[in-house]
Amino acid sequence: MIFEPISQTAPIHADEHGARAKCLQRLIRLDMPVPDTVALPFEAVRKLASGAEFDLNEMLDHFGELPLVSVRPSAQTSDWGGPGTVLNIGMNPQSVEKLAKKTGKAAAEALYLRFIQSYAIDVARLDAEEFPPSQTIKEALAAYEIEVEEPFPTDVSVQLSEVLRSMARAWEGTSARLLRQAKGAPADAGLGLLVQRMAFGLGQGESGSGVIQFVNAETGEPQITGRYLSQSQGREALAEADRAIYLTKDERGSSLEEREPETFAALIEQGARCRFGLREEMQIEFTLEDGELSMIDALRVPRGAFANLRIAVDLANDDVIPTDHALLRVEPQALTELLHPRVDPDAPREILATGIAASPGAATGKIVFSATAAQTAAAQGEACILVRAETSTEDIRGMHEALGVLTERGGITSHAAVIARGLGVPCVVGASSINVSMKDKTVELETGEILGAGDVITLDGAAGQALRGAVATLPAALNDYFTTFMGWAETAADIGVRANVDSEGEAEVARRFGADGIGLCRTEHMFFEDDRLTVMREMIFADETSDRTQALARLLPMQRNDFKELFRVMDGKPVCIRLFDPPLHEFLPSSKNGVRKLAEAMDLPVSKVNARVESLTEFNPMLGLRGVRLGVTVPEIYEMQARAIFEATVECKAEGIHAAPEIMIPLVSVMREVEVIQARIEAMAAAVHVESGVEFDYKLGVMVETPRAALRSGDIAKHAGFISFGTNDLTQMTYGLSRDDAGRFMGAYVAQNVYPEDPFHTLDVEGVGELLSLGCERARSESEGITLSICGEHAGNPDSIAYCRSLGMNYVSCSPYRVPGSRLAAAQLAVRDKGIRKEKRSISNSFRKAVELIKR
Amino acid sequence: MIFEPISQTAPIHADEHGARAKCLQRLIRLDMPVPDTVALPFEAVRKLASGAEFDLNEMLDHFGELPLVSVRPSAQTSDWGGPGTVLNIGMNPQSVEKLAKKTGKAAAEALYLRFIQSYAIDVARLDAEEFPPSQTIKEALAAYEIEVEEPFPTDVSVQLSEVLRSMARAWEGTSARLLRQAKGAPADAGLGLLVQRMAFGLGQGESGSGVIQFVNAETGEPQITGRYLSQSQGREALAEADRAIYLTKDERGSSLEEREPETFAALIEQGARCRFGLREEMQIEFTLEDGELSMIDALRVPRGAFANLRIAVDLANDDVIPTDHALLRVEPQALTELLHPRVDPDAPREILATGIAASPGAATGKIVFSATAAQTAAAQGEACILVRAETSTEDIRGMHEALGVLTERGGITSHAAVIARGLGVPCVVGASSINVSMKDKTVELETGEILGAGDVITLDGAAGQALRGAVATLPAALNDYFTTFMGWAETAADIGVRANVDSEGEAEVARRFGADGIGLCRTEHMFFEDDRLTVMREMIFADETSDRTQALARLLPMQRNDFKELFRVMDGKPVCIRLFDPPLHEFLPSSKNGVRKLAEAMDLPVSKVNARVESLTEFNPMLGLRGVRLGVTVPEIYEMQARAIFEATVECKAEGIHAAPEIMIPLVSVMREVEVIQARIEAMAAAVHVESGVEFDYKLGVMVETPRAALRSGDIAKHAGFISFGTNDLTQMTYGLSRDDAGRFMGAYVAQNVYPEDPFHTLDVEGVGELLSLGCERARSESEGITLSICGEHAGNPDSIAYCRSLGMNYVSCSPYRVPGSRLAAAQLAVRDKGIRKEKRSISNSFRKAVELIKR
Repeated sequence: MIFEPISQTAPIHADEHGARAKCLQRLIRLDMPVPDTVALPFEAVRKLASGAEFDLNEMLDHFGELPLVSVRPSAQTSDWGGPGTVLNIGMNPQSVEKLAKKTGKAAAEALYLRFIQSYAIDVARLDAEEFPPSQTIKEALAAYEIEVEEPFPTDVSVQLSEVLRSMARAWEGTSARLLRQAKGAPADAGLGLLVQRMAFGLGQGESGSGVIQFVNAETGEPQITGRYLSQSQGREALAEADRAIYLTKDERGSSLEEREPETFAALIEQGARCRFGLREEMQIEFTLEDGELSMIDALRVPRGAFANLRIAVDLANDDVIPTDHALLRVEPQALTELLHPRVDPDAPREILATGIAASPGAATGKIVFSATAAQTAAAQGEACILVRAETSTEDIRGMHEALGVLTERGGITSHAAVIARGLGVPCVVGASSINVSMKDKTVELETGEILGAGDVITLDGAAGQALRGAVATLPAALNDYFTTFMGWAETAADIGVRANVDSEGEAEVARRFGADGIGLCRTEHMFFEDDRLTVMREMIFADETSDRTQALARLLPMQRNDFKELFRVMDGKPVCIRLFDPPLHEFLPSSKNGVRKLAEAMDLPVSKVNARVESLTEFNPMLGLRGVRLGVTVPEIYEMQARAIFEATVECKAEGIHAAPEIMIPLVSVMREVEVIQARIEAMAAAVHVESGVEFDYKLGVMVETPRAALRSGDIAKHAGFISFGTNDLTQMTYGLSRDDAGRFMGAYVAQNVYPEDPFHTLDVEGVGELLSLGCERARSESEGITLSICGEHAGNPDSIAYCRSLGMNYVSCSPYRVPGSRLAAAQLAVRDKGIRKEKRSISNSFRKAVELIKR
Repeated sequence: MIFEPISQTAPIHADEHGARAKCLQRLIRLDMPVPDTVALPFEAVRKLASGAEFDLNEMLDHFGELPLVSVRPSAQTSDWGGPGTVLNIGMNPQSVEKLAKKTGKAAAEALYLRFIQSYAIDVARLDAEEFPPSQTIKEALAAYEIEVEEPFPTDVSVQLSEVLRSMARAWEGTSARLLRQAKGAPADAGLGLLVQRMAFGLGQGESGSGVIQFVNAETGEPQITGRYLSQSQGREALAEADRAIYLTKDERGSSLEEREPETFAALIEQGARCRFGLREEMQIEFTLEDGELSMIDALRVPRGAFANLRIAVDLANDDVIPTDHALLRVEPQALTELLHPRVDPDAPREILATGIAASPGAATGKIVFSATAAQTAAAQGEACILVRAETSTEDIRGMHEALGVLTERGGITSHAAVIARGLGVPCVVGASSINVSMKDKTVELETGEILGAGDVITLDGAAGQALRGAVATLPAALNDYFTTFMGWAETAADIGVRANVDSEGEAEVARRFGADGIGLCRTEHMFFEDDRLTVMREMIFADETSDRTQALARLLPMQRNDFKELFRVMDGKPVCIRLFDPPLHEFLPSSKNGVRKLAEAMDLPVSKVNARVESLTEFNPMLGLRGVRLGVTVPEIYEMQARAIFEATVECKAEGIHAAPEIMIPLVSVMREVEVIQARIEAMAAAVHVESGVEFDYKLGVMVETPRAALRSGDIAKHAGFISFGTNDLTQMTYGLSRDDAGRFMGAYVAQNVYPEDPFHTLDVEGVGELLSLGCERARSESEGITLSICGEHAGNPDSIAYCRSLGMNYVSCSPYRVPGSRLAAAQLAVRDKGIRKEKRSISNSFRKAVELIKR
């Protein structure tokens, strides 16, 4: 049988023998006292599982006469799990006798009993009730024989063979497979097994076992934690907390440090060696056998996102790893979580409903059912959670005021989800087990229980849960470690990151998170404020151009002010403003009551309002009269917006603020659309220049979001200073798939692997990606210096960022709260590309420093 | 000044001197007695218009002492028009005197007066009222001098110069320009002018003028028609019908044939020579001057579509032109018009409303406002016209029963228009001046007049008009000439033509029009029959799979029968059936009343029906849960359809009918969708094979209508026997433009040349076309023998057919009524590609035959 004794020089590889095997080899290379271990590679374990028989004698010879061993799993990545460790293999009457000489008879017999029981339950899969702790060896052997109809195996080779086969088969079981696949393991992930000479924590002299680590798992700060238990094996010290003692001096006065100061000092030294050698904070499993220290196993300290960031920064600051390497230690997604307060993982939670985790963070407040109610609550200083069947653009004002949003319908890219991420508001969508009645203002839970307005709930946006009552939360982790880390990321990244921002508040968030500018400002959201909505509706109802122009003239100062605020916050950084995009009917009331109110306000008959609303209704509004089509056919709207942008620029200049406006035309499908709008914008710029006498610069560009625009981007580039790919709409049109409607079958599609992933979440490189690629190539070949970017939701996804970077884009633009994650993803790409810098470090220096730090 | 005397060898070109100049040269080459003529090229006329002065003496020398000439326009194509001919230039006191010797004084003076008056009105642009026919020469000269403040020019050179300049300027006028551009002329189209020696139809001996042609302009049958008027000029014989005589023997006993038999015989001989030499039926303008015949001008006989077809066939049958050439003589669009009855062009018509000519043909009937009313009317044997604000899929039953459809909203590719073209039902859409109230069941006209149900109207689908009352119509022109012509087209064409067919009746039309098979059968239309709609709704409302399967089991025999009928009609020709495509909610009632009825029928509470309807409502149904997405997530529907297709195939075999089914999967965007459906269809085929014991063949293919499917057609081709490009949806998605909603701005877009044409009407070669091109190339490179086709509305457009042919597609599939037009377009492409066959004809033989035919 193929096996490999682990030594400093043995050819041990994580992708053949597993991560644990590799880790043990590293410990051995660091001269740490690891008991003899042999590794079975994935290949051998696979054969075992499919019934092959191996001769184990050669391996057992490795462990001497009467070998006593343990078997541990060793998957390629420790996250992927594996069957439980089996200890004490080789116990039988002979070995009891031999061991008794060393440990005393009682201890030896206890080990034998423990092995019989664990073998019966874990390997032979017998009922645990038949093997109570109070059993004698004889009783256990009898119980085994009754169940299996064979005597308990006493041959070591048979014992080991069965243990290995049992573990190999457990790995192939369906539930184990699903579990690890959920963690990202491939379907054919292999398992290695490690056979290790037992280091007994039992017997004469100080014997026992323990676990030690050198950082706090929640905060990441240096702190020695762990437990030690005399006369124990494996991880019993953690399992039996009552009997175990602390490692460092404790008020209770009983600690390993005091009881075994030399052992403690050795542990500290080994810990520092391990941290330095493995370049990671490790949790070490150790055993004392008659005072002699063995290192049985080491694994990466399990930790929260916050601790992970700090550990990475500390390791780099301590010169254990280069900063580039530190950047690779944090997942971009985890970084995003740090930006929000979160539900305390230790707080008790009663889950009322589960949905899609659409925007992370925690929020507690009273239920409200409408945007108006949210505004009222906010005005009274009351925290509220907006609960809707689904959200529409009319709810945006409410979403600004609510602390969280919960919807019954919608997917990860639904309107509510996109807006919430932009606002940084925790959001759970598609909680289909609840039934929201907007009419009765109630939420019916799956249990039949009814909640009403005013009932308090907490949203866990990261987990996608609605919880009963106020649940304890932990604050956002924006500290020096975060700032340091982001500084490194900014230095490393070679593709820019901007933010999609619709308001002054969001712009401030974007600036705080280090965005390079605003990549997409959706101006339509600015028209939903109450005072503006009325004017907007007057504009829409205008029969004559002159009436329309009048209404727009009243909107002009408001828009100008919007833009001034953005310019002020982003001072010096570019602000890309997308001209008005949505269909007009989104601004009209959808309820009977709304129509009646509007009719009163405008002094029009209800029938006329209804007729107008109806005439604006479209079969497929996504594909209707919106974007540049409105711009071409109702020129006054874009003209007003251009004037507002230019006047704001001029006013900023007077106030010493440096405005860098970029104007972006949405929904283009043919080059002529750009030409038509370009001419009008240029004329407006000239007019404002003449009126004010002030010189100013601006850029004009195009949002490429129809497949045709992508194909024709060569033409379009002739009239555009920049092109930004709107991959939300582009994905919709390339697939012929509305993201608002996709929720009804997306689950089934992804589950059946018809789509490998939701294309609104992960950029579809094969289809949409080809359009991006053609688009970039054609635009660049027509205009070499054109600025290219992406501003869809995908801009926050690391894979998509990698793809955009490979196309030579200049920047990505995402929700403000995703800016740090995207920046990190961009940095990681650059770091991986150039290879991790292998600095010549002064080993002795760093090592001394490491020991010092741990001792502190 | 550049001018070119027209002779047999002069370098005269239609694109330099105009079509009339070229035609006259041809007559001269045929040795016909054409008076001396010189041609001014476009270039010279253009200079004249911009004010250049030319010395005309050299030209006038050409016409001898005291020249008398006419000037005629000669545009590149005679259709493009031009200013009116001016006669008798050169008349002045001297020429009167000279001419009087030949024609007598009265005639000479009459000509002088006529010239003064025509010069005053047409060249000097004076008021016609100042120059009544009763005037004397003196009065006319005085009137001229008063208005112009200069004496009337007597210098020939001045007269000619002013006439030429005036005609050159008229050509540059805005209205003339718009008029010819509407007929397809380019913006810079040139005008040539012809200066011709006057052949006077006045004077001693038999003098006069006339017009002759050799076919009936309406029917195209050989028939000598025309008029002759003694002592007249130009086309006066036609203008003064009362005084003119017929050419052939007439009951009134006064004809040219009797009065001047030799001249008549010469005319017949010249006519035959002309027909043969110019290879066309010409209308000839001739003059007798003291018994001497001159041919002044010849132009293509103006004719209706019907006559044009017959003339082309006759010319080919008479060996005047090859059949390939005959194919080029008929416009595909004109052919389509022949398939329908049409409003008699001579009948008086009172236009009630004008809209978009969406489907040609004439229909008279009583107004009905609903599908149900149409069905009731049809059941009572009453002709009816369905009038709607716009149509939806629910109206299809009504459209089958109505003779015509009129809608207030919608464009050329709106639902109503597409269906109507498929059914061959005359249809006018987007008649925005009317106001249809579905509630009151009234149509309000622009005048305020109200029409109600039962009022009789006539639709002229070709003109896009709704007319008051019953207007006389002419029958469809499907005769032997049509059949002969289509036979030639089929032989010539090298790309197939199939029909888009949804019902047995349409299949019969397709077969009659010679379709190569059915390229697209939209099965969903089959579910709108009353009995089926109910079962369909039960299927949609099914909570359990078993209920759904039960409802579908009841639809199975109906579907099987649908397919059998199609197979029977198309016996042996392929029938491509598209699996169910639309979103389910299209089958649910949209009105309150409909919901109530359905609730009663299904014994469900109204609230439940409403909830279900609401839950199926989508924001953008075009991009929602439909097509293969339904097929993947609700497998039972496709399984039922596949079973129906296979069982129908088996039953046909037993009855000796050869069914050739092709199954097409709609709305694919990823290859996995095809794989999933393919597996299920294959399983169903195997099941039916086992159950019946009968072997049968079928093909499985994909409708490529999303941009992504086009890009990934290489993948898709691995699982598809054929690919058909659905360019309607593909255009929608490539532009991000819903054709149902595009009507609101398409007019403005085309008018402003933002889109050069409506992309739903003319295939967008630059954008959608690139996707077709990539799609074909990738599919072929993966599967060389794959069948490629297009089945969108574009398939009926000659330009689009040309493009599809250039991509190597195997066939196009269009509405049945467009099959002949598409076939002709395909034939013309092939003919143009190989060059017109230059047959070595026996000139003497054909010429003899030509003379004979004319004499008949």
